[in-house]
Order: sequence, then C-alpha cells, then structure tokens
Amino acid sequence: MTYSVAVVGLGAMGMGAALSCVNAGLDTYGVDLDEKLLAKLKAAGAKGVAKNAAEFADKLDAVVLLVVNAKQVNQVLFAENGLASQLKPGTVVMVSSTISAQDAKEISQKLTELNLIMLDAPVSGGAAKAAVGEMTVMAAGSEEAFAKLQPVLDAVASKVYNIGTEIGLGATVKIIHQLLAGVHIAAGAEAMALAAKAGIPLDLMYDVVTHAAGNSWMFENRMKHVVDGDYTPLSMVDIFVKDLGLVNDTAKSLKFPLHLASTAYSMFTEASNAGYGKQDDSAVIKIFSGIELPQKQEK
Amino acid sequence: MTYSVAVVGLGAMGMGAALSCVNAGLDTYGVDLDEKLLAKLKAAGAKGVAKNAAEFADKLDAVVLLVVNAKQVNQVLFAENGLASQLKPGTVVMVSSTISAQDAKEISQKLTELNLIMLDAPVSGGAAKAAVGEMTVMAAGSEEAFAKLQPVLDAVASKVYNIGTEIGLGATVKIIHQLLAGVHIAAGAEAMALAAKAGIPLDLMYDVVTHAAGNSWMFENRMKHVVDGDYTPLSMVDIFVKDLGLVNDTAKSLKFPLHLASTAYSMFTEASNAGYGKQDDSAVIKIFSGIELPQKQEK
Repeated sequence: MTYSVAVVGLGAMGMGAALSCVNAGLDTYGVDLDEKLLAKLKAAGAKGVAKNAAEFADKLDAVVLLVVNAKQVNQVLFAENGLASQLKPGTVVMVSSTISAQDAKEISQKLTELNLIMLDAPVSGGAAKAAVGEMTVMAAGSEEAFAKLQPVLDAVASKVYNIGTEIGLGATVKIIHQLLAGVHIAAGAEAMALAAKAGIPLDLMYDVVTHAAGNSWMFENRMKHVVDGDYTPLSMVDIFVKDLGLVNDTAKSLKFPLHLASTAYSMFTEASNAGYGKQDDSAVIKIFSGIELPQKQEK
Repeated sequence: MTYSVAVVGLGAMGMGAALSCVNAGLDTYGVDLDEKLLAKLKAAGAKGVAKNAAEFADKLDAVVLLVVNAKQVNQVLFAENGLASQLKPGTVVMVSSTISAQDAKEISQKLTELNLIMLDAPVSGGAAKAAVGEMTVMAAGSEEAFAKLQPVLDAVASKVYNIGTEIGLGATVKIIHQLLAGVHIAAGAEAMALAAKAGIPLDLMYDVVTHAAGNSWMFENRMKHVVDGDYTPLSMVDIFVKDLGLVNDTAKSLKFPLHLASTAYSMFTEASNAGYGKQDDSAVIKIFSGIELPQKQEK
C-alpha cells in the first residue's frame, strides 16, 4: 500500500521534509518555482516534481505546506485552479509555515468547505534537523488529521506536540517560540557588540558565554557566524522582521504588552532597512555603529 | 605544605566555593555575618570560621571575596581594621563579586598600595555548579596572581578563562554575560506570560521551547519555577536589578546604546518595586497583569 505526499515550498525546511519523506519510503512529490530545487529533489528519488501540483494532485494522501507566509499558503491553495480544488475529498493538509492563529483559522474554514482536513502544524529545528527527519512539530487539529498524517509525521519529526484540537493553537505556540528565538538573536548581537566596544575579543566572549548560564540555543548557533564574520544566510533577517511582526500582531489581538519582543522587532526592522535583510539573521549586529566586527577569513 | 584560604561571603556561590576548598584539602576559613552559615561550614570541615577574619588573617595565602557588591568588597577590605591591612604582604585577593570594571580598578589600586595582589575574577554557574567545584571563572590579572591562586582555582572551577592582564576585563566579561542572563530570564517571562494569556498550558509551552531552538539556559532553569509556581529564591529579582544596573553603567561609560538590556532592567526594577525583590528572579513574570499563573502544589 503506497502513501503519497506532496511538499510545497522546497526551502531549507521544505527540502529537508521532502527528503525525509523520500527516505521513509513514501511516494514523495515536490513543488517549487525554483527548477534547481526541483531537480535536486528529483535526483534524490522523488516520484515527481513540478512548479504546479496539478498533474499529481488527485494522487495525494497528504500535502505539506512549507512556503514563506500566509499569503503564499492562500495562493497555493485557493488561487484560481489552486491546489485545494484539485485534491481528493478527505485529503489532509499540513500547514507548517509560520502564520498567525487568525490566518490558520481562516485557512482551515476554507479547507473544511472543500471537504479537506487541516493540521495546524508549525515546525522548528532549523535546516540541519529538517534534513535528517528530526524536526519539532507543534500541532493542533482533529484526531483524524493527526492519524492521516502519521506516516509524514513519523518521517519528518523526532518530536510531535499535540497542543489540542483547536486550529490556531499550533500557530500561537510557534509564534511564542519565535518571540524567544528572535529576542535571543538580538540579545546575542547586543552583547557581542558591547563586547567589541569594550575591547573583549569576540571569540573569547563567545567561548565564555557558551560555557556559562548566559547561553542560548540561538546565541551558540548564530553568534558563531559573527565570530567567523560569515553572514551567508541560513535564515535571513527578513524572516525575523516577519515573525516578530506576527508576535506583535498576536500580542495586539490578545491585548498583551510586549516589552522585549517589540524592541527586538525594531532592531531587525532597522537592520533590514539598512540593507541587511537578505543576510543571515545574525547581521542584526550591524545596526551597532562604531565597533569593529570580525571579517571572514578567505580560505 | 599547607595552603590557607579564606572565603568571605557564604551565600550560594561563596558556600559552594568554600566547601570545594575544604574538599580539595585546603586549610579553609569562612567569614560571614550569618552564624548559621558559619556553623554549616565548620561542620563540613573548615579550619576556622568567624564574623571577622582578624583572628586568622595573617595565616592566609589567599582570600576569595564573594560578597554581594562593590560596596561590601570595599567594606570588607578597607574599612577601619579591614582585612587588607591585616594580610601578609604578597597575599592574593580573588575578587569574585559582580562589580563594575571601574570599581575593580580602584580596588586593585588600593590593594597594590598595600603590597597585595588582585585577581579580577567573577564567576558563573549557579549554586549547583558552585557546590561541586565546577564554577566558570572569567579572570584578569598578572601571571603571579593566577599562579598564587592555582590551588583555589583548581578547587572551585571546572573552567578558568584568562581574559588578559588588565584588571577590569574580567568584570566587563561578567557584566556582558549578565546582560544575556538577565534578558533571557525577562524574555522567558514575557513569552510564558503571553502563552498564559493565549490559553496555552505553561507546562506544554515549557516542554516545546526546551526541545526547540528558542531554548536558553535561563529559560530551562528559571521558567521551571514558573511552571511549578515556586518562587523560593535561588537568585533574587534584586540581584538582576543590581546586575542589569551595572550593564547600563558599563554601556554608558562606553557610550553604547542598549536596546534590550535597558528594557529588561526596567522589567526587574518594576518587579522589585511591586514587592517581588526578594523572590526568585523568575518572579519578574508577575509584572504582567490579567493572566493566571500556576500555583505551587502543596505536598
């Protein structure tokens, strides 16, 4: 008995998820606008790849959406001749992009009207974890949605949280997670910039912090890029402009005051406006003037 | 050949350091105003304990200061009949309280005038690490200061960073470390309070974050207290009012803008003014109104 799944959006996380599905023996299809990414997935053993899922939509048991934002989710699913209208009734759609709870609810409603089932299932873990099928999934939805997606969840995740049945709870948990991730990167940048200003060698500051109680997952991962002077984007500044924007939207809709996350949002927004939006998110450190940062060593 | 060391200030970190010295076979003396702490250390094998170090000052090879702030360091050393005037010339003084670089320099100058040697040596790791001789020490000072303190450093630390010879660099590295520690606690509180407002169970939010890229050492350690509703102080809110105050002083003296740390300072200051200063530093979450936090389960 075969199980067919399409992954839409083959960025760092989507490609990792798709490869994990291939490795788990699922009939895997890939959708992206970038032909290089399609070729890569095809070469790795995908059953089919396309810029548009129309040709294999009716074969699918499940769809995983890992596009950038809610606008793209809506476009993929509900544009004229969109994917939602071509899926078999009962197909399950795992929406794993970081979107607001409100958007998640609206998308779920539209899918329900088409007899499709949604799992509100954002992911975390970074590209490295995605590549080896060890993402963390924070999911909300019906028992049926979880059950129908079991082969996919087994393939892509090492940890699946069942937050509840109410669509939007998964999105909210992810957004609160992103509050911490974003603030930690911005705080790491503030600390390292202050160290540079004080004449502390940044490799030594990095070594101290990563062996002490001031450490964070993001400090350890992203401030290494600052120490190396390498801002090749793994995840971009503009992603945190978007995600901390969602944090602010969420807080506003709940009437909740954000002291730190609103400040971190301003820092990433300033970095983007200063021209660093497409660099690695650790480039938020470049908003601090009058300091000398490590330069990349050419090999 | 015996080696004699006095630890002044037997709080969580000082008691741990003193016990580690006893366990390493050093002749260990303890100084504190709290008789219970003196009795505890004496029972654990200390050579001597007292409210004032006068009676054993001339026997000492080294002194470790782990009092709360620079004012107390100055009082212990330089008050009338202070410890500094009673030590043998050449005795090494390890100043491990969190103080400003400026204070460290002034204390060093006064010690030098009395033919004493200072190591500017703040510590990190928390009470648990201190208790087992595994603190992290970030130290600046002369080769002689490091050499003379070697038995103490071996006893109390699993990691000793030599930041350089210039007194004040150790203090600065510690203060930058505290910037991260303080912001991470405040960010953890902001995230957990938002989760409470959104109706996410806090134990589940804690579980997700500690298994994902939003984690920090402080989130994992301190937000557990929030989940358990237990604000028994391990380190108090008022400590971060002090330490983030030092971060702000340091930034001001270097003309450096602090976006996040100044906000975190305001959050801890508000918590202290609201009456939570002597509670665990995770009680900074209590500045958020209109949410319901977990209550401690009576056993």
